[in-house]
Amino acid sequence: MRPSRRAPDAMRPVSLERAVTRHAEGSCLVKFGDTHVLVTASLEEKVPAWMRGTGKGWVTAEYGMLPRATHERTRREAAAGKQSGRTLEIQRLIGRSLRAVVDPIALGEKQIVIDCDVLQADGGTRTASITGAFVALHDCVEWMRARNIVPAQAKVLRDHVAAVSCGLYSGKAVLDLDYAEDSDAEADANFVLTGRGGIVEIQGTAEDEPFSEAQFAELLVLAKKGIGELVEIQKKALGL
Amino acid sequence: MRPSRRAPDAMRPVSLERAVTRHAEGSCLVKFGDTHVLVTASLEEKVPAWMRGTGKGWVTAEYGMLPRATHERTRREAAAGKQSGRTLEIQRLIGRSLRAVVDPIALGEKQIVIDCDVLQADGGTRTASITGAFVALHDCVEWMRARNIVPAQAKVLRDHVAAVSCGLYSGKAVLDLDYAEDSDAEADANFVLTGRGGIVEIQGTAEDEPFSEAQFAELLVLAKKGIGELVEIQKKALGL
Amino acid sequence: MRPSRRAPDAMRPVSLERAVTRHAEGSCLVKFGDTHVLVTASLEEKVPAWMRGTGKGWVTAEYGMLPRATHERTRREAAAGKQSGRTLEIQRLIGRSLRAVVDPIALGEKQIVIDCDVLQADGGTRTASITGAFVALHDCVEWMRARNIVPAQAKVLRDHVAAVSCGLYSGKAVLDLDYAEDSDAEADANFVLTGRGGIVEIQGTAEDEPFSEAQFAELLVLAKKGIGELVEIQKKALGL
Amino acid sequence: MRPSRRAPDAMRPVSLERAVTRHAEGSCLVKFGDTHVLVTASLEEKVPAWMRGTGKGWVTAEYGMLPRATHERTRREAAAGKQSGRTLEIQRLIGRSLRAVVDPIALGEKQIVIDCDVLQADGGTRTASITGAFVALHDCVEWMRARNIVPAQAKVLRDHVAAVSCGLYSGKAVLDLDYAEDSDAEADANFVLTGRGGIVEIQGTAEDEPFSEAQFAELLVLAKKGIGELVEIQKKALGL
Amino acid sequence: MRPSRRAPDAMRPVSLERAVTRHAEGSCLVKFGDTHVLVTASLEEKVPAWMRGTGKGWVTAEYGMLPRATHERTRREAAAGKQSGRTLEIQRLIGRSLRAVVDPIALGEKQIVIDCDVLQADGGTRTASITGAFVALHDCVEWMRARNIVPAQAKVLRDHVAAVSCGLYSGKAVLDLDYAEDSDAEADANFVLTGRGGIVEIQGTAEDEPFSEAQFAELLVLAKKGIGELVEIQKKALGL
Amino acid sequence: MRPSRRAPDAMRPVSLERAVTRHAEGSCLVKFGDTHVLVTASLEEKVPAWMRGTGKGWVTAEYGMLPRATHERTRREAAAGKQSGRTLEIQRLIGRSLRAVVDPIALGEKQIVIDCDVLQADGGTRTASITGAFVALHDCVEWMRARNIVPAQAKVLRDHVAAVSCGLYSGKAVLDLDYAEDSDAEADANFVLTGRGGIVEIQGTAEDEPFSEAQFAELLVLAKKGIGELVEIQKKALGL
Repeated sequence: MRPSRRAPDAMRPVSLERAVTRHAEGSCLVKFGDTHVLVTASLEEKVPAWMRGTGKGWVTAEYGMLPRATHERTRREAAAGKQSGRTLEIQRLIGRSLRAVVDPIALGEKQIVIDCDVLQADGGTRTASITGAFVALHDCVEWMRARNIVPAQAKVLRDHVAAVSCGLYSGKAVLDLDYAEDSDAEADANFVLTGRGGIVEIQGTAEDEPFSEAQFAELLVLAKKGIGELVEIQKKALGL
Repeated sequence: MRPSRRAPDAMRPVSLERAVTRHAEGSCLVKFGDTHVLVTASLEEKVPAWMRGTGKGWVTAEYGMLPRATHERTRREAAAGKQSGRTLEIQRLIGRSLRAVVDPIALGEKQIVIDCDVLQADGGTRTASITGAFVALHDCVEWMRARNIVPAQAKVLRDHVAAVSCGLYSGKAVLDLDYAEDSDAEADANFVLTGRGGIVEIQGTAEDEPFSEAQFAELLVLAKKGIGELVEIQKKALGL
Repeated sequence: MRPSRRAPDAMRPVSLERAVTRHAEGSCLVKFGDTHVLVTASLEEKVPAWMRGTGKGWVTAEYGMLPRATHERTRREAAAGKQSGRTLEIQRLIGRSLRAVVDPIALGEKQIVIDCDVLQADGGTRTASITGAFVALHDCVEWMRARNIVPAQAKVLRDHVAAVSCGLYSGKAVLDLDYAEDSDAEADANFVLTGRGGIVEIQGTAEDEPFSEAQFAELLVLAKKGIGELVEIQKKALGL
Repeated sequence: MRPSRRAPDAMRPVSLERAVTRHAEGSCLVKFGDTHVLVTASLEEKVPAWMRGTGKGWVTAEYGMLPRATHERTRREAAAGKQSGRTLEIQRLIGRSLRAVVDPIALGEKQIVIDCDVLQADGGTRTASITGAFVALHDCVEWMRARNIVPAQAKVLRDHVAAVSCGLYSGKAVLDLDYAEDSDAEADANFVLTGRGGIVEIQGTAEDEPFSEAQFAELLVLAKKGIGELVEIQKKALGL
Repeated sequence: MRPSRRAPDAMRPVSLERAVTRHAEGSCLVKFGDTHVLVTASLEEKVPAWMRGTGKGWVTAEYGMLPRATHERTRREAAAGKQSGRTLEIQRLIGRSLRAVVDPIALGEKQIVIDCDVLQADGGTRTASITGAFVALHDCVEWMRARNIVPAQAKVLRDHVAAVSCGLYSGKAVLDLDYAEDSDAEADANFVLTGRGGIVEIQGTAEDEPFSEAQFAELLVLAKKGIGELVEIQKKALGL
Repeated sequence: MRPSRRAPDAMRPVSLERAVTRHAEGSCLVKFGDTHVLVTASLEEKVPAWMRGTGKGWVTAEYGMLPRATHERTRREAAAGKQSGRTLEIQRLIGRSLRAVVDPIALGEKQIVIDCDVLQADGGTRTASITGAFVALHDCVEWMRARNIVPAQAKVLRDHVAAVSCGLYSGKAVLDLDYAEDSDAEADANFVLTGRGGIVEIQGTAEDEPFSEAQFAELLVLAKKGIGELVEIQKKALGL
């Protein structure tokens, strides 16, 4: 039995609260159980230098954890003077995941910067970030549409995108690992899928022993179930 | 009339919510109107090198703003690779303010690290941080007392401490400036006082024209009123 | 047809040259076609601080590209003052991949540092690095065994490990992408497998359109073929 | 009695030597007793990016201490790779203090950079810096006037500005603390006033026990006396 | 007798292999015995800001050592976050040495960046770098000439340039020190001369005892002999 | 004729003022004409980690220029976040030059840190630094001797050391170049010699055209003359 006493295919309670901060064009407080991430989407007039004049837009992401989001306090990256490899890896993943569902021409030559700041961590911060970031990004695009910065009919977001982790725990495939489960899992994989079930990203890692193809297939089955649920929750939150 | 339509001596609505994050020994979400700061207090076994073996404890603070806490997104300090002068100045102020009411011998050779992270900014982030940090620090000390890390009778906190800003707006002294007021104020001062009215820190700055001694005295009168109210709110939040 | 005119399931010519540098305990010049990586394995007496006294060893990796390994010169990371997110991500992957086949107790409380420096890049630098690093690591362990630093019978390496990339090019699954293919691929995945076929790492990314589960399964079939070949080449190079 | 044997309201001997370095448009070697600061004012054609095209000028300041200006050698900030929080705080204060008496329109779209480098420290380095910087700034403006870079009649400097520290030592208010007094003071405040007695900056800090409003008023009385004397010394040095 | 058993005036075997990397406009793998340096020359359209519009070109150099080029692994400079003083000193020397034989007007407003990366070190890495860099630079210029980026007749390189170290070992002047000799030498000097024997750079350092003018003259005699041989090897490699 | 109207073999007026700062164990304000450098020698109990337990002492140096020591203001290295290659090169040279005349065993396991800060620059800052640093170092050693930190009879300094630059100006060898001469010189060399005429360091660089052996010999003749004079001035300053 998993430490969380959840069924192997059960997600933690998920909530997506919109418009949680006053200044951002889009924002979302996403909770996967005790993992809480505040996501903002900020519209910027300037795209990166290498995109200027292309007529295409860009979505990028930054990620951070408050120092005491974790069990033990971790050093503040601003004080350390650099972002860790883990941070850079996660924010690159978030950016790629969102761009997979954005039509850059429909967006027009603008940049949207997504900030994912973990207020409280209990495993799965990157998957919660992606899932919540889609909502903040959606609201940012609607904010732009309301001001005719994107045309009324433009389909900037081509699909939903959401993410979940799965893992092998005591030899069994389980969905949406919390911190305690993640620490003891034999394998751990993150899946980013679209609303129509297309695969955007897969990252799987064996912790101790390599895992088999069959085990990996089980993880993918769970991921599809979980992400199906997450997309429903996104739709409900967005009133779609 | 001030932009906020408040009376010159009126604070914004203030709230202090305790125990808002799962891992920290003490925490507080402090709101001064639209300024929201998440404060955590983390107990660490190790004091700074220069204090080892003295038997005395230490309280230090770090401060940060989420990139989109502000009207325009500001650059993430972790990505920039350093903390700004403004950030360093504020976190030094917060640390000094708290140490002014801590008995380092009663605390014992431990360090408490205060993290103040601004989720949403609308002026007065440093004064809100100090006011909320006192609550988080208090709860951290009680957490320690409950585990006999500090003795049952030890008086670690010798008094309350809270802070407020005052300023000259259209020539008139006003209390607790929000962002719009702060941007147009002719002078701006931050006061840190104890529960008994002792002065811990005063920082006053003329923006354009120097101000007079009489004007400064008016600001101090307002500050004492405001901080009196803040200490009452602290007491109520803490059930004292 | 792929730009390289290779069959979809054909690897580039692969070579693994051992003992290519005079000072390192183990070294390997690995070539996957025009991708050339110089790998060294360095024995260090000291393990990371958090491992001291555990009796267990550690393998870690660093990765770099010479500035003109690429078509256009890229900025030297030492001059830029930091390693890019891509570099950090790759070197974390190499380290995890190798540790997956190392028995840390058999190694004993030592650290082996793997350095992978790309002399010439044409796609697949991370997969070539892992494949060559296994050889350098093997020779470092044998160097230690010859000096009784690891016991004669100790099985430090529990299996082979190698890596290859696969991708979807013009809708078709192809093995071992070179730079031209990688730039135009619709999807790109890196697989790290053991000699017995266990999965150590999977990283798959859609470039433009999400890909399907069936397509992903095709990539995995190719990867198993390619890594089977790489393990044979490792064995031949090592005289096993 | 204070360690320096000075009367409570007595400044240290102060001197302001002009034109002490060959290249700068304005310069001043300021001494407050054993505290010696070399100040230069450098004219630059370029204002900060956010001021371009406004027709207004800017004055900014940087501060540093030679490593052995102090009792014990301190680490060179250039070697450490960053300026300390204390340094940043002081140079921000110097810049603000000078801007308070500069008419940016009369100056025109130019930048004057003030460098304050402490050759020898014995307390009060920031107040000596401000007092000497006014002289260097004045000479830089006259240098510009002599070359018609500012018009003959332009009143760029609207008033004098000078600074002094005061503190509570053994319970008594004293003026212009040296290092020994500062180390033992119960409170410490820096005042920046104009020639006409307007307040530009006040920074007061309790070291151990909070201080009272009455005590603060005493400090301000001393500060006004001291700054009155400093402004006279400035006038004499400048031949006004 | 020297540890290498070479005659006092004998160089190590030297080889210069051209076109060793696929992407660079010019490249050379230079070996002075066991010292191996991979040199590339990269053409860039942009000159440094301070040269724009002058019609003149620029040659600059960067230098690095692979971490395990040395007996003991040295820390990767990219990971350390900065280049050492030794690295900066060497790359400045390489750049100056090459510019001494380049006609910047004949080159035209382009920049050539030389990268010298030490694959294996055994003393004399800076002298090997300069000697090989001349070959890579030559091939880069010919690459440009073949594409009419420099005119057919333009004499961009006015002479050869090469470098060698000499030292006092057991009181005797010896040519081209390897690592073992360098570690025990009483003095150590690097000479950069042109093909016609002109002096471009001399750097001599006493290790323990100062050396005499007569001893220095002996070193210069050896250097001229060695560099004469190196220039012949350059000519042969370049088919001149 | 040289811009300074000095005879080719004439030094600028040189002065060495001792004990110019209150805290340092030794100090010297050295002037070579308009080049002014403040040098301090600081005794530290701790030697570098790699020397602990050897019983030997160490002398090291740091170098800096005040931002407006130069004609145009240069960026403050502490603000830039790193020391330039030029700075690192100079401070390494100063340290090596001093160590050439120090007996590390006679010094005992202590470290002396030399700080050379250029207050005003007009060419020759490194040679003035070395010449003045000898005086500061001497006084630091005598300070130690007076306190029995080095034995009464210990000969810590084995000889004098001083430095001067020479160059080819309009084809003629000249001594002690100032900034105007240095900017137009065809070649430029720095010599560090001992009191007995031994060579410690030679650094010669051709600016445009290579120079000849005969020209270099002329420079060395001038250097010996100049350094002879500098050593006399050192002796006089030190009362030897």
